[in-house]
Amino acid sequence: MVFNNVGDPAPPHGGNLAAARRCFPGAPEPFLDLSTGIAPRAYPLPPLPPEALTRLPEPSDHAALCALAARRWGVPAGARVVAAPGTQILLPMIAALRPPGEARILGPTYAEHARAAALAGHAVREVPVLEVLTPARVVVVVNPDNPTGRVLPFATLDALAATQRATDGLLVVDEAFLDAAPDLPTALPLVPGGGVVVLRSFGKFHGLAGLRLGFAVAPEAIAARLEALLGPWAVAGPALHAGLAALADEGWAAAQRQRLHAASARLDAVLTAAGLAVLGGTPLFRFVAAPPGTGARLGRAGILVREFPHWPDRLRLGLPPDEAGFARLAAALA
Amino acid sequence: MVFNNVGDPAPPHGGNLAAARRCFPGAPEPFLDLSTGIAPRAYPLPPLPPEALTRLPEPSDHAALCALAARRWGVPAGARVVAAPGTQILLPMIAALRPPGEARILGPTYAEHARAAALAGHAVREVPVLEVLTPARVVVVVNPDNPTGRVLPFATLDALAATQRATDGLLVVDEAFLDAAPDLPTALPLVPGGGVVVLRSFGKFHGLAGLRLGFAVAPEAIAARLEALLGPWAVAGPALHAGLAALADEGWAAAQRQRLHAASARLDAVLTAAGLAVLGGTPLFRFVAAPPGTGARLGRAGILVREFPHWPDRLRLGLPPDEAGFARLAAALA
Repeated sequence: MVFNNVGDPAPPHGGNLAAARRCFPGAPEPFLDLSTGIAPRAYPLPPLPPEALTRLPEPSDHAALCALAARRWGVPAGARVVAAPGTQILLPMIAALRPPGEARILGPTYAEHARAAALAGHAVREVPVLEVLTPARVVVVVNPDNPTGRVLPFATLDALAATQRATDGLLVVDEAFLDAAPDLPTALPLVPGGGVVVLRSFGKFHGLAGLRLGFAVAPEAIAARLEALLGPWAVAGPALHAGLAALADEGWAAAQRQRLHAASARLDAVLTAAGLAVLGGTPLFRFVAAPPGTGARLGRAGILVREFPHWPDRLRLGLPPDEAGFARLAAALA
Repeated sequence: MVFNNVGDPAPPHGGNLAAARRCFPGAPEPFLDLSTGIAPRAYPLPPLPPEALTRLPEPSDHAALCALAARRWGVPAGARVVAAPGTQILLPMIAALRPPGEARILGPTYAEHARAAALAGHAVREVPVLEVLTPARVVVVVNPDNPTGRVLPFATLDALAATQRATDGLLVVDEAFLDAAPDLPTALPLVPGGGVVVLRSFGKFHGLAGLRLGFAVAPEAIAARLEALLGPWAVAGPALHAGLAALADEGWAAAQRQRLHAASARLDAVLTAAGLAVLGGTPLFRFVAAPPGTGARLGRAGILVREFPHWPDRLRLGLPPDEAGFARLAAALA
């Protein structure tokens, strides 16, 4: 079961205002978009130098960004950071690192992994439990999970990696939401042992999803292959510029984490007060049980949340950006 | 013969200032970078709305950009425009549209095509004449050519397409430099017949190479495959925003063409006065015969031009941005 199959009228996940206007034509504008897991407060970018737009991105800046990301995340020796225009574009490339076979995805989870694995020629199985997840040509886990927030402990990741290595399989660990909760277990220490690729996001935590910047952390040979496929100048000047500033700014990151934790706690309070059960999530979104139709009701009130076509009693909600947003959500749920 | 093999110390083409500083440590700064074919005058962008950075790119904006590009270029029915973060990232995806076999590239030419075809598993042959170019699994021509400026007439493109179609081969026509000289023959009318993919650039003509925006024009099935591989949100917000403004601005494009033609004529005059023979080019760059060592001499004077390791008596020069640039080049060549 995946959330949205290719061809569904809705995009695979949130942020599509034009579609929202078609779905909810009478809704009050502006829409309050809680359909993504993107931080509502963006990193305050320094002014963009004109060269970031006019010149090809400098290879030395690209290399500096990868090195900076490696330091920020404590990437171990034997693992290398690859920067891309969003992690999204990496998914089919990574799935194709192994010849077509079976890809198993711990899910239901972020649907793009299943789509990417199918594009690479794999037969895709979404499996609900760890016991039958490995071994397979390609195995994908999202940790912490999107949308449930489920966290796999390091020992589990280690065991999955060991089983995959024993059969020359690949383990992909999508850590797109880890920056908001960096004490959670990461698979980065497993990368140098081989057979493991970790995905990291930039735009979600830094509130800059439009820039398109994402990363893979992989053993040298895989990193070289991904860089070759991406080609030179894969990361645009504005994204390079933003990444170099933001990933060096540990102070802002600490403050952002505090803001996200406070906002997600407040979101929990609003949801709970409205009688919805918060089942999990991360500091960037909450996963709730809600009566079928709740998403449509919110949509008619101009509030977009993430619905799951095959899971009608579940919703994912991102963080309201301000007081007015929290108040509007509370009123719509009342 | 390709210009630069992977692993050469120089980047596959221009714009690498850090490498230039290592090569020419005593050169006067700032460097005058004539090593690319990027227009020195950039499209005057309207202010970037914050949402272009903070929100995921809107699918409706992405679709509007593709439709606008199709109108601008007169893309025929049966062909569809695919937008990407630069054409570069599309090259391995396009080469992989056919199973591994032989890829033949009319060359020497832009070296990234050979690299991309090899990544896709093809045995790559660079062939100097049309007679032995087709049929092959994948055939690539750059038209007008980079760096020579050679132009293949439409009848030739038509014949290449017919031979490729007869063996289910693919013909890739890279028209990266066509916008500056739109009266030159284009392969776009051949796309609906199948087996032909045309590449178009944005950043070169509009002087916005840092934004990373490029296009493929392909039959529906290929376009759908490329879009699936690129995934949603492949084009960043700033690039979408710029493309929507610039591709609608026919008046600026006409003025830009006049500027480029005038500047390239003036560049020819400077080069000819210095005793160099201008062999060809496009309005965005000139291709010249020059005594071996001329590139290094210019480099020591702080002027970067495109050298060809395997072709020591040829140089490619982009357009100086202003009076001072023309004067500096003339003085360095004197």
